[in-house]
Amino acid sequence: MSRPAGRKQENHKISRELFVLTYGALVAQLCKDYEKDEDVNSCLDRMGHSIGVRLIDDFLARSAVKKCRSYSETAEMIAQVAFKMYLGVTPSVTCSSPAGNEFSLILDKNPLVDFVEELPAERASLCYCNLLCGVIRGALEMVHLAAEVTFLQDRLKGDPVTEIGITFLRKAEDRKHKRN
Amino acid sequence: MSRPAGRKQENHKISRELFVLTYGALVAQLCKDYEKDEDVNSCLDRMGHSIGVRLIDDFLARSAVKKCRSYSETAEMIAQVAFKMYLGVTPSVTCSSPAGNEFSLILDKNPLVDFVEELPAERASLCYCNLLCGVIRGALEMVHLAAEVTFLQDRLKGDPVTEIGITFLRKAEDRKHKRN
Repeated sequence: MSRPAGRKQENHKISRELFVLTYGALVAQLCKDYEKDEDVNSCLDRMGHSIGVRLIDDFLARSAVKKCRSYSETAEMIAQVAFKMYLGVTPSVTCSSPAGNEFSLILDKNPLVDFVEELPAERASLCYCNLLCGVIRGALEMVHLAAEVTFLQDRLKGDPVTEIGITFLRKAEDRKHKRN
Repeated sequence: MSRPAGRKQENHKISRELFVLTYGALVAQLCKDYEKDEDVNSCLDRMGHSIGVRLIDDFLARSAVKKCRSYSETAEMIAQVAFKMYLGVTPSVTCSSPAGNEFSLILDKNPLVDFVEELPAERASLCYCNLLCGVIRGALEMVHLAAEVTFLQDRLKGDPVTEIGITFLRKAEDRKHKRN
């Protein structure tokens, strides 16, 4: 796997604190807009998807990575190159299915929740960082990889770590082939 | 004026692209929520104010700057230390009043609008980056400086540069003294 080229890295960096607080303002606004946590979660996922769809070009240009040859390589790329580049952290990756298409990104520390202590009691089903799932899903879609991306564990909800599950879905053509 | 100490800088940095796109999602959501541009602008300013109120501690801790002795020094501090630290750009500063309490921060390039080409025709009065004004106002308030902060020019609206105006307001005690 190639490493990011680091071209003009300084110009592409901003303070995490400003991002974290702005993201918090976005989630708070959606909580005002939608009564149900599920609706906030969907909205964050949709917004993230639009972001991922646009961010992938920037990622491919700046990282100068080669095409991945397996789901496992793709998951490692997301963790070691994309997370590092965009959020400044590197989750660990585990493969959680014998079929080799389900992976977990494990974050000991979630950089998006620096200023969040805990979710309010009435927002217990909120996936605070659901934007990230949408971003991953949108970016993968642009390189022709369909995936389901969801939070499996969340330290904000008392879990010991934050875990993002990525399930790569068989391609439509594969399914068609199988059926014939 | 002291320079930022740069303690653990890497850990505090994230990609600007992710921030810019997330900020765009926030503005788009507010445009859905509020019909009038003025209401979106006020909301961004209010959100920014809350962010500034919280960000000032981070700024003082990380920048290790000394207390400013004049409005002019404060304006330079915002441009050269705060903007550099949080947005990775350094606006130029001009003083625009004989009284010495009005300053302009001039940005040749606004890092928040990378992915925005122009404002939609029906959103001609939108101050897209109004969050920044609120952040500055909120942060100044926490160091006991009352100020009005507004966009005076905006490249998104066809102006040649982006200009943020800061007017430091006399302190309440000053006003009281004057009256007596």
